[in-house]
Amino acid sequence: MISTKGYAAQSAVSDLAPWNFERRDVGPHDVQFDILYCGVCHSDLHQIRDEWGGSIFPMVPGHEIVGKVKKVGAHVKKFKVGDLAAVGCMVDSCRVCEECKDGLEQYCSGTGMVGTYNSREKDGTPTYGGYSNQIVVHEDFVLHVSDKLSLPAVAPLLCAGITTWSPLRHWKVGKGHKLAVLGLGGLGHMAVKFGVAFGAEVTVLSTSPSKEAAARQLGAHKFIVTSDPAQLKGVKRYFDFILDTVSASHDMGLYLSLLKTDGTHICVGVPSEPMPIHAFNVIMGRKSLAGSGIGGIPETQEMLDYCAEHNIVSDIEIIDMKYIHQAYDRMLKGDVRYRFVIDMATL
Amino acid sequence: MISTKGYAAQSAVSDLAPWNFERRDVGPHDVQFDILYCGVCHSDLHQIRDEWGGSIFPMVPGHEIVGKVKKVGAHVKKFKVGDLAAVGCMVDSCRVCEECKDGLEQYCSGTGMVGTYNSREKDGTPTYGGYSNQIVVHEDFVLHVSDKLSLPAVAPLLCAGITTWSPLRHWKVGKGHKLAVLGLGGLGHMAVKFGVAFGAEVTVLSTSPSKEAAARQLGAHKFIVTSDPAQLKGVKRYFDFILDTVSASHDMGLYLSLLKTDGTHICVGVPSEPMPIHAFNVIMGRKSLAGSGIGGIPETQEMLDYCAEHNIVSDIEIIDMKYIHQAYDRMLKGDVRYRFVIDMATL
Repeated sequence: MISTKGYAAQSAVSDLAPWNFERRDVGPHDVQFDILYCGVCHSDLHQIRDEWGGSIFPMVPGHEIVGKVKKVGAHVKKFKVGDLAAVGCMVDSCRVCEECKDGLEQYCSGTGMVGTYNSREKDGTPTYGGYSNQIVVHEDFVLHVSDKLSLPAVAPLLCAGITTWSPLRHWKVGKGHKLAVLGLGGLGHMAVKFGVAFGAEVTVLSTSPSKEAAARQLGAHKFIVTSDPAQLKGVKRYFDFILDTVSASHDMGLYLSLLKTDGTHICVGVPSEPMPIHAFNVIMGRKSLAGSGIGGIPETQEMLDYCAEHNIVSDIEIIDMKYIHQAYDRMLKGDVRYRFVIDMATL
Repeated sequence: MISTKGYAAQSAVSDLAPWNFERRDVGPHDVQFDILYCGVCHSDLHQIRDEWGGSIFPMVPGHEIVGKVKKVGAHVKKFKVGDLAAVGCMVDSCRVCEECKDGLEQYCSGTGMVGTYNSREKDGTPTYGGYSNQIVVHEDFVLHVSDKLSLPAVAPLLCAGITTWSPLRHWKVGKGHKLAVLGLGGLGHMAVKFGVAFGAEVTVLSTSPSKEAAARQLGAHKFIVTSDPAQLKGVKRYFDFILDTVSASHDMGLYLSLLKTDGTHICVGVPSEPMPIHAFNVIMGRKSLAGSGIGGIPETQEMLDYCAEHNIVSDIEIIDMKYIHQAYDRMLKGDVRYRFVIDMATL
């Protein structure tokens, strides 16, 4: 077993604190790598507080992981020692169901995907995430990272990036489309960058007029303050797509009214409460309320390669491990542009 | 003006009763026809009771109208005296917006469509529906009906038929798809007929075990009693599409769980209350909750032609005009297979 240092929550009410644990030895298909940076995702906080239910403790959060390969198993083909490597939200899946065969491991209908943390390997071992100094993962769930990009700024691509990339690609959002991005946080700012890169007209919808300059700096073409009825009226039946990154409750009927005929509202944020939706809101204009969760392994690699080619990374603020609770507090207030990334050298 | 006999509600709390009113003279592009049969739709009752708000009284309901052409305007090209003719839920729209140009007049983003009743013509005149002896409509909103089919059984195709046809065609439901039809009433029974005709595997989901024989007689391949957890478990993540014809409140989370990855739940029924939907229900498996409303004029004609070719009509019970209140009572109890059609000779 491999002795590992990390930061863990021992229960839903305890703070994160240093914790030593063991990872499995490197198997024939495994890659072991030193974690250099790990992004801080809102879902880390949801899960250490058990806000979605079923949390497994002790919990080492973190699923936006980048680092450098230290050791590879005998049969590993894709990686060699010294390579840059990344792991996102999954470390395994059944591998044999239709979804897995289609490269949609996140929707695995066999055993379900194995999450990078707060989950269990097929043998029942709990998984521990990236707030730690190293990780051991089957090579099929490890991604290549280009050395052309700033490594810490790549980390958030593994969740915030792929979670917005995947639906934009699935629904073929691009030239000629009007895309609204709802919420300008970790996910939202990546959605703006990708939407612009794909050629869509991108509008940021936000409650805060103060975010306009930042939105435009990211490349957004328009900015709408959703608390201003006059501005909202100007975009009734306007958008082909709304990418909804908001995880607080919000009025879905209002946003559905901003969609054109055949428009699609895509949820990637997860409010803890169900949203009331009237059938008329989708019937009038043949609209869809859809959802999308992270992304599969092949499309994650595709995204990382595209980002390397187009020089796209996340906007980040690098923090020390011990700053994590202040980071969570600021994240809850929306006081981060746009993602905290932990420098694991500070562990 | 043309003196017309009909049955009208004078207010949201009054019964339907005989009422004489006037229709416009036949304009150069108008078709006047004698109404021979009119279907009874659940939305007639919703609207005379003002359950959706904004009802216009006096109201002559009815939007499943078939009859014989009596007079045509000087410029009418599509119809001649003696032709069979039909009118559905719309009698006009703006004609110039993108939706109208695409033959999706029901989603008209210009002025909005003009409903066959409980609506207003562009000049403000209220529209009166098919519970009457004749109607005058612009030829662009009049459909051809084949004499190969039983005329009264064609009437419900104009709403129940097109409302289920349109989404099944739009989402290209057919061979290789598993289609669930939720609710076996006027709409549901047409959805089963069309789904089977298009080559899908059709399952009826119903709360009433007693409906199984009838479902199978309509061609359904499977029947699931939704109150039986064991039967439901067998169809978890099973369907590509659910066509939801239910207009009472129901548990959307449960039905979304029956969809495969990338599955689509299509609402055509309109519960009066909003439905609570958790974002996870669509995110897990990249599912969509969509809606669809009636159908455009070109696709309605396409459906009528297809029905003539494939000998598809609605299963109906012909009633006298004066039986309408008993018919409504029985409709509310689901005691009709599957649509009441008023014989207008009894007016």
